Amino acid sequence: MIVVLKEGATKEQCAKVENKLKELGFQTHPIYGEIKTIIGAIGDKRSANKNIILAMDCVESIMPIMQPYKLASKEIYKTPTIVDLGDGVTIGGKKIVTMAGPCAIEGEADFLEIARRVKEYGADILRGGAYKPRSSPYSFQGLEEDGLKIMNAARAETGLKLVTEVVDPRDVELVHKYVDVLQIGARNMQNFRLLKEVGSLKTPVLLKRGLAATINEWLMAAEYIMSEGNENVILCERGIRTYETETRNTLDISAVAVIKEKSHLPIIVDPSHASGHSYIVPSLAKASVAAGADGLIIEVHQDPSNAMSDGEQSLCPEDYNKLMNELKPIAQAVGRTI
Amino acid sequence: MIVVLKEGATKEQCAKVENKLKELGFQTHPIYGEIKTIIGAIGDKRSANKNIILAMDCVESIMPIMQPYKLASKEIYKTPTIVDLGDGVTIGGKKIVTMAGPCAIEGEADFLEIARRVKEYGADILRGGAYKPRSSPYSFQGLEEDGLKIMNAARAETGLKLVTEVVDPRDVELVHKYVDVLQIGARNMQNFRLLKEVGSLKTPVLLKRGLAATINEWLMAAEYIMSEGNENVILCERGIRTYETETRNTLDISAVAVIKEKSHLPIIVDPSHASGHSYIVPSLAKASVAAGADGLIIEVHQDPSNAMSDGEQSLCPEDYNKLMNELKPIAQAVGRTI
Amino acid sequence: MIVVLKEGATKEQCAKVENKLKELGFQTHPIYGEIKTIIGAIGDKRSANKNIILAMDCVESIMPIMQPYKLASKEIYKTPTIVDLGDGVTIGGKKIVTMAGPCAIEGEADFLEIARRVKEYGADILRGGAYKPRSSPYSFQGLEEDGLKIMNAARAETGLKLVTEVVDPRDVELVHKYVDVLQIGARNMQNFRLLKEVGSLKTPVLLKRGLAATINEWLMAAEYIMSEGNENVILCERGIRTYETETRNTLDISAVAVIKEKSHLPIIVDPSHASGHSYIVPSLAKASVAAGADGLIIEVHQDPSNAMSDGEQSLCPEDYNKLMNELKPIAQAVGRTI
Amino acid sequence: MIVVLKEGATKEQCAKVENKLKELGFQTHPIYGEIKTIIGAIGDKRSANKNIILAMDCVESIMPIMQPYKLASKEIYKTPTIVDLGDGVTIGGKKIVTMAGPCAIEGEADFLEIARRVKEYGADILRGGAYKPRSSPYSFQGLEEDGLKIMNAARAETGLKLVTEVVDPRDVELVHKYVDVLQIGARNMQNFRLLKEVGSLKTPVLLKRGLAATINEWLMAAEYIMSEGNENVILCERGIRTYETETRNTLDISAVAVIKEKSHLPIIVDPSHASGHSYIVPSLAKASVAAGADGLIIEVHQDPSNAMSDGEQSLCPEDYNKLMNELKPIAQAVGRTI
Repeated sequence: MIVVLKEGATKEQCAKVENKLKELGFQTHPIYGEIKTIIGAIGDKRSANKNIILAMDCVESIMPIMQPYKLASKEIYKTPTIVDLGDGVTIGGKKIVTMAGPCAIEGEADFLEIARRVKEYGADILRGGAYKPRSSPYSFQGLEEDGLKIMNAARAETGLKLVTEVVDPRDVELVHKYVDVLQIGARNMQNFRLLKEVGSLKTPVLLKRGLAATINEWLMAAEYIMSEGNENVILCERGIRTYETETRNTLDISAVAVIKEKSHLPIIVDPSHASGHSYIVPSLAKASVAAGADGLIIEVHQDPSNAMSDGEQSLCPEDYNKLMNELKPIAQAVGRTI
Repeated sequence: MIVVLKEGATKEQCAKVENKLKELGFQTHPIYGEIKTIIGAIGDKRSANKNIILAMDCVESIMPIMQPYKLASKEIYKTPTIVDLGDGVTIGGKKIVTMAGPCAIEGEADFLEIARRVKEYGADILRGGAYKPRSSPYSFQGLEEDGLKIMNAARAETGLKLVTEVVDPRDVELVHKYVDVLQIGARNMQNFRLLKEVGSLKTPVLLKRGLAATINEWLMAAEYIMSEGNENVILCERGIRTYETETRNTLDISAVAVIKEKSHLPIIVDPSHASGHSYIVPSLAKASVAAGADGLIIEVHQDPSNAMSDGEQSLCPEDYNKLMNELKPIAQAVGRTI
Repeated sequence: MIVVLKEGATKEQCAKVENKLKELGFQTHPIYGEIKTIIGAIGDKRSANKNIILAMDCVESIMPIMQPYKLASKEIYKTPTIVDLGDGVTIGGKKIVTMAGPCAIEGEADFLEIARRVKEYGADILRGGAYKPRSSPYSFQGLEEDGLKIMNAARAETGLKLVTEVVDPRDVELVHKYVDVLQIGARNMQNFRLLKEVGSLKTPVLLKRGLAATINEWLMAAEYIMSEGNENVILCERGIRTYETETRNTLDISAVAVIKEKSHLPIIVDPSHASGHSYIVPSLAKASVAAGADGLIIEVHQDPSNAMSDGEQSLCPEDYNKLMNELKPIAQAVGRTI
Repeated sequence: MIVVLKEGATKEQCAKVENKLKELGFQTHPIYGEIKTIIGAIGDKRSANKNIILAMDCVESIMPIMQPYKLASKEIYKTPTIVDLGDGVTIGGKKIVTMAGPCAIEGEADFLEIARRVKEYGADILRGGAYKPRSSPYSFQGLEEDGLKIMNAARAETGLKLVTEVVDPRDVELVHKYVDVLQIGARNMQNFRLLKEVGSLKTPVLLKRGLAATINEWLMAAEYIMSEGNENVILCERGIRTYETETRNTLDISAVAVIKEKSHLPIIVDPSHASGHSYIVPSLAKASVAAGADGLIIEVHQDPSNAMSDGEQSLCPEDYNKLMNELKPIAQAVGRTI
């Protein structure tokens, strides 16, 4: 890292900073500029307490050279990670995976029907919410374990893999028995206890980007999971918060290319939460495939106008079918299948 | 609420929407404009599923008239809430409370010393982190229960009340035995399970605004706690995420006036996290008192350049003393004491 | 529009608001809710002074139902606008146009070479900056009229159409004689005098979205140009400002679908300014074509590491060629050509 | 500045970068880290083309050490600038100046009345808009020169100094003859031609921060004006664009302390545009004075509900009077007068 000293810092102050850096295990290289002095500090001490330096009177700022994440970066793992869900379903390979299903599981018959439909139209993984993090305490909160049982029934019938959100560290043990992928929602991206809990398993984790998380913070959240031993992390871009109100969130489509440059982890896109409006979903889904995403997670509901949650952003099965057909030539154009 | 139909919606479509609204318990009042039709829907059905309406084909948008929160609003409680911590320490009354102390508890001797110093300079409540939500898994995570014991020793000696953060629903039971105020951090503002857990107690809760939370979402988080039965909620503005990089966050000072208009709950300000730089803290603390805040929470460390966390935004005790003296005439100017 | 009265507004206050609305030419429809009263105001009075209503004591807020723009909306022009530059070059039709060239024009020989190269690889329009709005007064500001002459020479040789930015109302008269499309840059999107000046011509205008402009404000800027009589407006999404620092701006890819829904105007995308890094440009260009954009504007420089401006986001000609080839099957997949 | 090379950069590549830096006039100091190499580049070459370096293949990023602005920084002028408007009115000294008046000048009688009222209640400078940058082409655009004449009449009668916005470089010559301070509005903060035009005069300039401008960009805009020879720049914080919708903008109150640290220029605050609601204005005005601002610019209208522009954020004269009285003890508390 680079330590920048304040204008007018004395030789003594500079020496003091150098000594502190050496104490922390760094090699130091001061450079005396015309107006300011900087100190290059060498050594990969990611866990060292840089605040000690930053809080010194004569220090203006610190500029890190290395990324703070390691396991999530390409430094160690140079080849792309492929997360294997079994039965030939993998995420991060040539085939673009699609996850589809309703926001919330509302009942068995409906859920089985939607499962059959999305399977028919080409989905690989079935999504459904059993535990819903709703911003109002008065909104429907999900069927909980009953919902998970319904998901299981749908898997038994269709062969689709299952992904569902977990919102409480106390539920992880239970939920992971029912599903193939554990989802960490945007609101919980920095719920570090929950990250550690899913990190202690081997079940793949779909890590949604936080509402206003930087790409760096997102990769640090992945690092939390990986540092506990679970390296099966799939990143999911789902839009970030901006001032624009025409869409629920602003899809950061650039994140696909940035993640591919910085990390070996697979990345998928959620065009439903990103836009908040079903009319925008197909455009974003196509853009994501063209941009290089490894998959999509799309809300599909057989009757969006009777959905208990997120109806306005759900596709009906017919529109999902149409979209899947439109995605095929785009996937092919970028050397993938879907 | 107002339901706006799309341009060209037919009478039949309008009637269909009206029927659905009536099913949900609303009275309806259609207004036929020159280009668009809208339907006024009367009835305070906060828990009704508006998504059903929003997902109907001919519906363009819904505009809520009522706020989604109730217990946190002034509709029911028209007088300001005063949270009473006992021994004459209240939040929301004439006296502006100050919470002070280090980011993390690092050891007993140091913590007792800082407790004595902030007490001497006028603090009412001692802050200290025993469980730290750090964005890197490799950073110091706090002393946990040992930290709580140290806090207790400090209270025994100084008489200061205690506030500390809780990050896991499983810890609430333990932590609340040690402290006077439970803090919900910015990253956990929408950790709804944690909100429900602290909502089931009577211990006052300091609810920090989320990193990129709207004022509405923040009040909905308060509603979660209150709807479980705990009405002792203190709001804490700590800066929001913006594009500006000179400060760690952007203090939304307007939130003080907005909260005073919309809610009966007390609001305090955290100038340390908002700015991220100790040189900015005094300016923000003064601004907050002048703006009408009910309190301040300030990071103070006896040796910021050796702090294990957030040293660059901590005041040393001497600067805290100076600031407290400067705040007195400002508090007086706005008819308060400090 | 809907006028929402404050809780507790009296019948008299409501009548006063109704009278004021009638004065302004609206028909009124009050709806008395359990807690609040609202007044539906009918009439398409886009120029009426809504502030008069908003400033009344008993009025809480106003909710517009109609968009504030008219000429830029689909209300009047229901079919997509195709901007015709002559010689078969159109924007908004089946063929996706590509604009390519360096950020700034640095000299004749270099510019002619890059013109030949981008022409060879399939560009339709040549971009080049003669007047540069640079954030530092000490940076290169462009060759001005000499640059325009060089552009003319390049058009004469290659047949490419020309687009360049105009930054001062006093220059419009001169610049429009040299080029086929006048560009309004992001920093000038609300330079209303400049908008009016280009609105008084018939020369097509490429209107870049402002740094932090909403889609509504952007369409209002188009309305400024159109209301002066120039309907040849091409919108250009170039990324918006967010907190994310990995990219120069955040490409709002959803804007493509939103504009297609709200407006009849063509929309193109600038992946170079959106990302700020050449490694991200191809991913964004592909995403834009798949999302439904009508064109692309891409910075290409024969030697990015010697560019006087924006080198880090420019493609070299070889990479531009490669990208154009990769875009072809994607354009085909969405029923377009490129 | 620091040049960071990509992982795996070779010695040859490093040498190539060093040579290029030397060509540009820098001294170089390479530091070879365990994983990455960086090069310290010494020399205050603010106008050197850093893009040349950034666009080199093996270069990952550049970190500037020095601020890009010079005349606006404290490097050269270490004492605070006091802008003198004559007749004892100064900005940046012990006395906090207040600018007050309506958004737009609507007619002579009304304007003279408001001038008398704000003068009576303690204003130093009269504000009024003769040229209005309105986001809709259908909104009232101002009385132009007739408005300036009305302003002159008001100055003749009350002795108040005058501030008004100029929106077109072609108007600067005319407008500066009528007023004491030229205002550059938020939308024109990067209208560089306009900045240069006002920079060529000696008339003080009130430079509003752009809608989404960083503090750095704002100071660079000041640098534009100063580099033309006009050093009488007054900065005005007026809120920045964020996702929060309860306020029109988010007042960045921290900007006061940051500007005081980085620059010698005076800074005032506009609580009216920052909040957009008159009920929030007094809280923000008090906060600004307490934070250390050198002045305030407040919208005052004798009948806000009949204002042609911005009525909802204007104070009536009585509320302005009340606020001025409440500000006095706060100014005193921070060692100032008002």
